[in-house]
Amino acid sequence: MSAAVEFTERLIACESVTPARGAVFDCMQDMLEPLGFEIHRFIAGEVPDGPVENLLAIRRGPKGTRHFAFAGHVDVVPPGQGWSGEAFTPEIRGELLYGRGAVDMKGAIAAMVAAVADIPADAGTLSFIITGDEEGPAIYGTRALIDLIRQRGDVPDLCLVGEPTSVNRLGDMMKIGRRGSVNIFLETTGVQGHVAYPHLADNPAPRLVAMLAELDALKLDEGTDWFQPSNLEITEMEIGNPAHNVIPGKAKARISIRFNDLHSGAELGERVMEIARKHGGTANPVISGEPFLTPPGEFSEMIARAVEAETGIVPEASTSGGTSDARFLKDLCPVIEFGLVNATMHKCDEAVALPDLEALTRIYRRVVQAALSS
Amino acid sequence: MSAAVEFTERLIACESVTPARGAVFDCMQDMLEPLGFEIHRFIAGEVPDGPVENLLAIRRGPKGTRHFAFAGHVDVVPPGQGWSGEAFTPEIRGELLYGRGAVDMKGAIAAMVAAVADIPADAGTLSFIITGDEEGPAIYGTRALIDLIRQRGDVPDLCLVGEPTSVNRLGDMMKIGRRGSVNIFLETTGVQGHVAYPHLADNPAPRLVAMLAELDALKLDEGTDWFQPSNLEITEMEIGNPAHNVIPGKAKARISIRFNDLHSGAELGERVMEIARKHGGTANPVISGEPFLTPPGEFSEMIARAVEAETGIVPEASTSGGTSDARFLKDLCPVIEFGLVNATMHKCDEAVALPDLEALTRIYRRVVQAALSS
Ligand SMILES: [Zn+2]
Ligand SMILES: [Zn+2]
Repeated sequence: MSAAVEFTERLIACESVTPARGAVFDCMQDMLEPLGFEIHRFIAGEVPDGPVENLLAIRRGPKGTRHFAFAGHVDVVPPGQGWSGEAFTPEIRGELLYGRGAVDMKGAIAAMVAAVADIPADAGTLSFIITGDEEGPAIYGTRALIDLIRQRGDVPDLCLVGEPTSVNRLGDMMKIGRRGSVNIFLETTGVQGHVAYPHLADNPAPRLVAMLAELDALKLDEGTDWFQPSNLEITEMEIGNPAHNVIPGKAKARISIRFNDLHSGAELGERVMEIARKHGGTANPVISGEPFLTPPGEFSEMIARAVEAETGIVPEASTSGGTSDARFLKDLCPVIEFGLVNATMHKCDEAVALPDLEALTRIYRRVVQAALSS
Repeated sequence: MSAAVEFTERLIACESVTPARGAVFDCMQDMLEPLGFEIHRFIAGEVPDGPVENLLAIRRGPKGTRHFAFAGHVDVVPPGQGWSGEAFTPEIRGELLYGRGAVDMKGAIAAMVAAVADIPADAGTLSFIITGDEEGPAIYGTRALIDLIRQRGDVPDLCLVGEPTSVNRLGDMMKIGRRGSVNIFLETTGVQGHVAYPHLADNPAPRLVAMLAELDALKLDEGTDWFQPSNLEITEMEIGNPAHNVIPGKAKARISIRFNDLHSGAELGERVMEIARKHGGTANPVISGEPFLTPPGEFSEMIARAVEAETGIVPEASTSGGTSDARFLKDLCPVIEFGLVNATMHKCDEAVALPDLEALTRIYRRVVQAALSS
C-alpha cells in the first residue's frame, strides 16, 4: 500500500467532525515529525465558535531558498445517513477508498505528506498550515494560523490549498479565485392592526416589497475577465402572521450576495443599508468572506504543467463555487486551490479513487519541486 | 328585575362557545314559545365546520300585514383569560351586568324578546333568525336559516341584526352596510439550489416580490358615497428557508382585500389571479363575504328616529368594520345592524350597562312598531 493511501486511511480513522481537536492532530504530528518538520499545535477560541485546534508544521531550508506551503483542513462535515459502511472506518472496495473526508480533504492532505517525503531538506522551506475548523464558523481556524505565521515571520512565497476542485476527473479544474459572500438581514417595522381598520395600522410589508424589488433590480457588475457577474439572491421572506385579518407589525427578509473582486463586503453592506433606509427599513450585513484572485500567471502555470504532466489535461482556471480558507490565506501570498474530484464530498459514501490519490501525490510533488526552484 | 335583564342573565348562563347547540336554544325556545312563536330548530353541517344548531321562530300576523325579522347569534367567542368573575355566571356589579356575550349579542337578543312581548299579535308577522355559528366559520349557520326561510316562503320585509354597533354610547352608530372580504393566497415556484450556483437554480422570490409590488400599487377605487375606498393589505410573506446559502424553491404570500359594493369577491379574485399569472405565479382566493349596502332611506330613518327618541342622538350610518351575518341576510330583504356598545366585546369582563339594555328594548320596540305599520 502506498504512503498516500495509508495516510488517508489513518486520517479517516480519526473521527474529526468539525470543530476537530486531538487525535487527528496527533496523527498529523506522527506523519510530519519523522520527515523533519517542527510542529506547532495550539487551541484557539471559545464556545460557540471554538475551541478549535490548529497545526503549523515547518521544515526550514537553507537561508535564501524559497518557501512553499500546503494548506488544508482535517475537520469533516458530519457523516449523515445512508452509508453502506462505517463513515469513520476506512474501507477499500475495488479501486475506491471510502470514508468521511476521503476527498474533502484528508486524501489531499495525505497526498501532500507523501509528496514532500522525498523532497530533500536543502531544496527549500516547506510548511503545512492545517486547521480543525474549515467546515464550521472558521473564526479561530486559518485566521489564527495566519496570525501565528505573521508573528513568527514564517510567511510562505506560495500556498496551495488542497480543496477538492476537480469536477469530472482529477485535474480538470483548479480555483484561482473565489467570490466573496455576504448575507444581509432586512427588516421593516410598522404598527400592527386589523385589516378592517387600516387607518389605525401601518403595514411594513409594502416597504419591504419595494426594498426587495429595488435590490433585485440591482446590476452589481458585468463580471470581469476572471469572475462571473456578482449575484444577489433573495433567500428568505418572513412575516410570520397566521391571522388572516391582522395587518402585521414587522416584515423580514434575507438576501445573499456572492461578489467578485470589484466589490468588498463592507461596500455592498453600505449600499444595501442605504437602499433599506430609503424604504424606511434596516439592513444588517454579515460578511462571510471577501473575494480573492490570484491572476493567471507563473503560479497557475506551474500547477497546470504539473497536472498536465500527470493526467494529460490542462486544468481550467476557475473562480466559481463557494468560499474556502483561501479567502484568508490570500493575505499572506499568492494562493491557488487544487485537489481531488468533488463529486462525493459532503455526501454519504464519500470515496476517493486510489489511482487519483497516487496521481495527486505526483502532481503535488511536481508543484513543490517547481515552486522551490522558481 | 326587567325582562331584558332577566333574559340576558338566562342566556349568559348557557355556556355557548361557538359552535353552539342545545341548552342556549332550549332557553330561546322557552322565552319565545309563551309569546306565541312557532319554533323551528335544526342541526346542520358536519365536522369540521359543523354541526351547528339554528332556530327560526315565527309569529304570523293577519294576512297582508308586514313581516319584520330580528336576526342574531347565540354563540360566543371563548372566554379567554383574566376575568374578575366567572365568564358564564352572569353577575351584576353596580350598573353593569357581566358575562361572555353580554353585548355580543345575548343582551341584544334579550332586548328583542322583551321588545316583542307586548306587540299585539295582529300587528303583523314577526320572526327571529337565530344561529349558533356566527363567530365560527358560519358555513352552516345563517346561510342554512336563509335556505329554510326561502323554502317555507317566510321571507321578511325588513331585518334588523343585533350586532353591537354602538361605539362610545348606545345609539351613536348603526351599520347600513359592510365591506366584503377576500383572502388570496399567492405562490411562486422555481428550482431550489445553492447561492454559489445561481444558474442551476430558479429563484421564485423576485417574481413574488414583483407580484406583490403590482398588487400593492393597485388603486381599486376612490370609495363611494357610503363606502370608504376598497383596501388591499399584504398580511403574510413566507419562504421558510433557514439556510443562508440556499436559493429557495417556493415563495408564498397572502393578501387580504376589504372591498366596497363596486366589486365582488369573484371579480377581485379573477383580477389578482391574472396579475399572479403575469408574474408566473398562482393566486387562490377565499371569499369570506360579499359586501352589502342598504342605502340610507326609509329603513335607516325608521331606526334613526327610534334611537333619537330614546337616546337623544342620531346614529351615524356607517359601513366600516368587519363582516357580519348581514352579508347573507341582505339576499332576503333590506338589512341594517344596530345594537349595544361594542367596547368590551370579545374581551374579558364583557359587560352591558343595565340602562342600555332597557333603552335598547324600547328602541327595538319602536322599530318593530314602525316597521309593521309602514
Ligand atoms: Zn474542504
Ligand atoms: Zn356578534
